[in-house]
Amino acid sequence: METLLLANEDVDANTPMAELVAAIRDAFVAYERGNAQMPAKSYIDLPQYNGDFRSMPAYLSTDEWDAAGIKWVNVHPDNPDSFDLPTVMGTMIYSDPENAYPLAIMDGTELTMKRTGAAAAVATDALAVEDATSLGIVGAGVQSYTQLEAISEVRDITEVVVSDLREERVERFVARFGDEFDVRGGTISEAGHCDVLSTVTPVEDPIVGPRDLGPHTHVNAMGADAAGKHELADEVLLAATLVIDDYAQTTHSGEINVPWSAGTLGDDDIYGEIGEIVAGEKTGRTAADDVTVFDSTGLAIQDVAAAHVVYAHASERENGTAFGLLGV
Amino acid sequence: METLLLANEDVDANTPMAELVAAIRDAFVAYERGNAQMPAKSYIDLPQYNGDFRSMPAYLSTDEWDAAGIKWVNVHPDNPDSFDLPTVMGTMIYSDPENAYPLAIMDGTELTMKRTGAAAAVATDALAVEDATSLGIVGAGVQSYTQLEAISEVRDITEVVVSDLREERVERFVARFGDEFDVRGGTISEAGHCDVLSTVTPVEDPIVGPRDLGPHTHVNAMGADAAGKHELADEVLLAATLVIDDYAQTTHSGEINVPWSAGTLGDDDIYGEIGEIVAGEKTGRTAADDVTVFDSTGLAIQDVAAAHVVYAHASERENGTAFGLLGV
Repeated sequence: METLLLANEDVDANTPMAELVAAIRDAFVAYERGNAQMPAKSYIDLPQYNGDFRSMPAYLSTDEWDAAGIKWVNVHPDNPDSFDLPTVMGTMIYSDPENAYPLAIMDGTELTMKRTGAAAAVATDALAVEDATSLGIVGAGVQSYTQLEAISEVRDITEVVVSDLREERVERFVARFGDEFDVRGGTISEAGHCDVLSTVTPVEDPIVGPRDLGPHTHVNAMGADAAGKHELADEVLLAATLVIDDYAQTTHSGEINVPWSAGTLGDDDIYGEIGEIVAGEKTGRTAADDVTVFDSTGLAIQDVAAAHVVYAHASERENGTAFGLLGV
Repeated sequence: METLLLANEDVDANTPMAELVAAIRDAFVAYERGNAQMPAKSYIDLPQYNGDFRSMPAYLSTDEWDAAGIKWVNVHPDNPDSFDLPTVMGTMIYSDPENAYPLAIMDGTELTMKRTGAAAAVATDALAVEDATSLGIVGAGVQSYTQLEAISEVRDITEVVVSDLREERVERFVARFGDEFDVRGGTISEAGHCDVLSTVTPVEDPIVGPRDLGPHTHVNAMGADAAGKHELADEVLLAATLVIDDYAQTTHSGEINVPWSAGTLGDDDIYGEIGEIVAGEKTGRTAADDVTVFDSTGLAIQDVAAAHVVYAHASERENGTAFGLLGV
């Protein structure tokens, strides 16, 4: 038997976004219903290299498919300057749950961007106004592209406002999407007055305040992935209908980790988990809602669900490189 | 940059056993001295498939090198009958600790056999009589071969007695090693009266009793890897100088897990960890010792240390297959 190797461009070419959004929604439902196993992320901290490794194993079972795998991923902020390498790199092993054969090994970096966009799309579908047509993006780095790609699958987005301190990033984003959307650079407040806002920055001091948002804006807070990071002012979080992906992860390293740790924001301020909403156990946006916020930390089940989609497409199209790693 | 893919035969061809034994010894020392990180193995249990997945991440630093990686491994006992696949398969990602680039992805099954043999050799070197010339092996399955390959690196083994209920396994073992050693099939007691004995079976009812051993035999108890398994009678364990690899793992799933859980064997019956002996903090065999037992569960740091040796050799010889998985 052979294992399918899927490089970054294979992952990109084999991720139909509409299917991925559906698979991520299914993964959140499976998790909510107890049809998933996701041991806590385990960390290896290497302060001598200013970096860490994280292992993210998971299994999930939906009505139609099940999937297992592990993503091995790092955060080494000195990489761009010291090694001309990305800060974050991931490698994903995707395994057959029934017999554990490693069906595929794929680039986990591209996979992470795709599934992060898809998670924002699932939340947007549940929490944004139905007739949303405008999307703001704060932070035009590598994670911003899949926000637009995925969210435009669930709402008829025509207008995009992108905000970044680095003008060349804005230009690159506009060049990439200018043919498909009405895209322009703008301030944080202009981005935040769109129907949907995705924040995709690594900041530790909030950059989005209450006056930066429209009265019914849905915010996908995607950036915070470590203790100490947060993008939205406490008043925004406290006033919003606040939805999280996972309680343990979000209180540890998500958007709310700072005010939650300080006691400014408590468990009563959390409306629910995204899985509860997409499983139909809690309602999404209602007419009564003003600002809604989705606090996304990124779950291992998202990676496994995304790998399932990528592998199915790549093997069907005979993409990728088959390799007899195990010799069985 | 490219990632080196090392298939099972590449791992086999690039594991100089003497170097591997030294690296495994270094890994035990690093662990003892606190120069290693080894988060607890995390499990995904899939009773519907009678199987499980385990993730084993680790980092270690010796005086000369450091290494990081993760092994993703399973136990699916129905595999041989249902899928013509091994019960246990492993995939290892070996990463540069400094920037986290995945230097190699290799077959973890072959790697596990090699590092398990090497661990037995480290223990044998510390605990067997100096002039040991005979090795008994109980259980002639896939893990038995590296026991002889590794232990013969640390003692001048000339005579080998192999015991297995399945005669064809004994014949295969004899055919493999008959040119290099005086190898014959025998009973468990004949194997146990050698200077060194390695037990490599998955039994749940002990098969080695006190009368099956010589007065100074050193026993490597390699087989137990799950709660409920044990190969040696309680009297053997209680009378022996008992050395373990890791307290948490051995009390959970090692040779002593059954009598320890029953309270028959307590912490006071454990002489020490192998790391304490090879680091020089406790003495190995002395003239006063009778039977010694090494309870090996297999540690993630062994996999990472083994991957370090394999990668160094393979890249030096330009073995393996370079592949641009991450596109960076």
